Amino acid sequence: MAISKKKTKSGPGRSKAKAGRSKSSAKTTPVNEAAVKASLQYIPWQTIPLEDLNPLLQRQFVVGQGIMLARVLLKKGCIVPLHSHHNEQLTYIVEGALKFYIDGKEITVHAGEVLCIPSNMPHKAEAMEDTVDLDVFTPPREDWINKTDRYLRGEE
Amino acid sequence: MAISKKKTKSGPGRSKAKAGRSKSSAKTTPVNEAAVKASLQYIPWQTIPLEDLNPLLQRQFVVGQGIMLARVLLKKGCIVPLHSHHNEQLTYIVEGALKFYIDGKEITVHAGEVLCIPSNMPHKAEAMEDTVDLDVFTPPREDWINKTDRYLRGEE
Repeated sequence: MAISKKKTKSGPGRSKAKAGRSKSSAKTTPVNEAAVKASLQYIPWQTIPLEDLNPLLQRQFVVGQGIMLARVLLKKGCIVPLHSHHNEQLTYIVEGALKFYIDGKEITVHAGEVLCIPSNMPHKAEAMEDTVDLDVFTPPREDWINKTDRYLRGEE
Repeated sequence: MAISKKKTKSGPGRSKAKAGRSKSSAKTTPVNEAAVKASLQYIPWQTIPLEDLNPLLQRQFVVGQGIMLARVLLKKGCIVPLHSHHNEQLTYIVEGALKFYIDGKEITVHAGEVLCIPSNMPHKAEAMEDTVDLDVFTPPREDWINKTDRYLRGEE
């Protein structure tokens, strides 16, 4: 059950109403994204789409007001190419192990451990075994949301 | 190994230098908090102090630039009293189950599930079994950092 979906003000037939013409709402935006993001969200992961990025990499995520939580599934040998972003990142390893090449060092983060990556610090990662990780970003990664994250899709 | 500690610019004897008199640094702040927070942090949890808040509640946390990650250990029956905060919150249950009283509902979040709580939404929680949870906040909880979180310490 995704609580957030229940909290939007759309009702039966509302999607058919033309923008600005619904008597029950003068707003022209059919779904108020800000209101959805600011609502309570209860997330069993099976309710969230699992996106295939490349044969070794899958991902699903939840977006809040100023924060994003992603669950990333990496098969052994998966490489996340060197990249950087202005978003601060916290990585928590649920299962497996992820080796980071970062800040001139190699750091293998094991299950239960955390890596806190400052804004704009370039990093590459390699799955040393099948791995489940949780990535938190603030602000949310716009490139993940709008699917312009080509470095993860083997398109660069 | 806490990488962040290695990245501070303090050296042998530096802590003995009087503020503003060290030849190697004109800054009057012995430890530049901003620089520490902006550095890479690799966190095996056993390197982070585990704080006893009350007989049923322990906590440890890591603070980044604009984000905080806490690992919270709750014994079955532990109650986190009704409270709210401006910080947006993501709760991920690692083990156990936590029942939230929030937004007029009761929601039990089980292992592997997530609750995304908007800013300023009052909530209470109850551990249905021994529980390990990860809480993410943005911005970091100042009341947790400066230990004014009396509602968790049985002082209210």
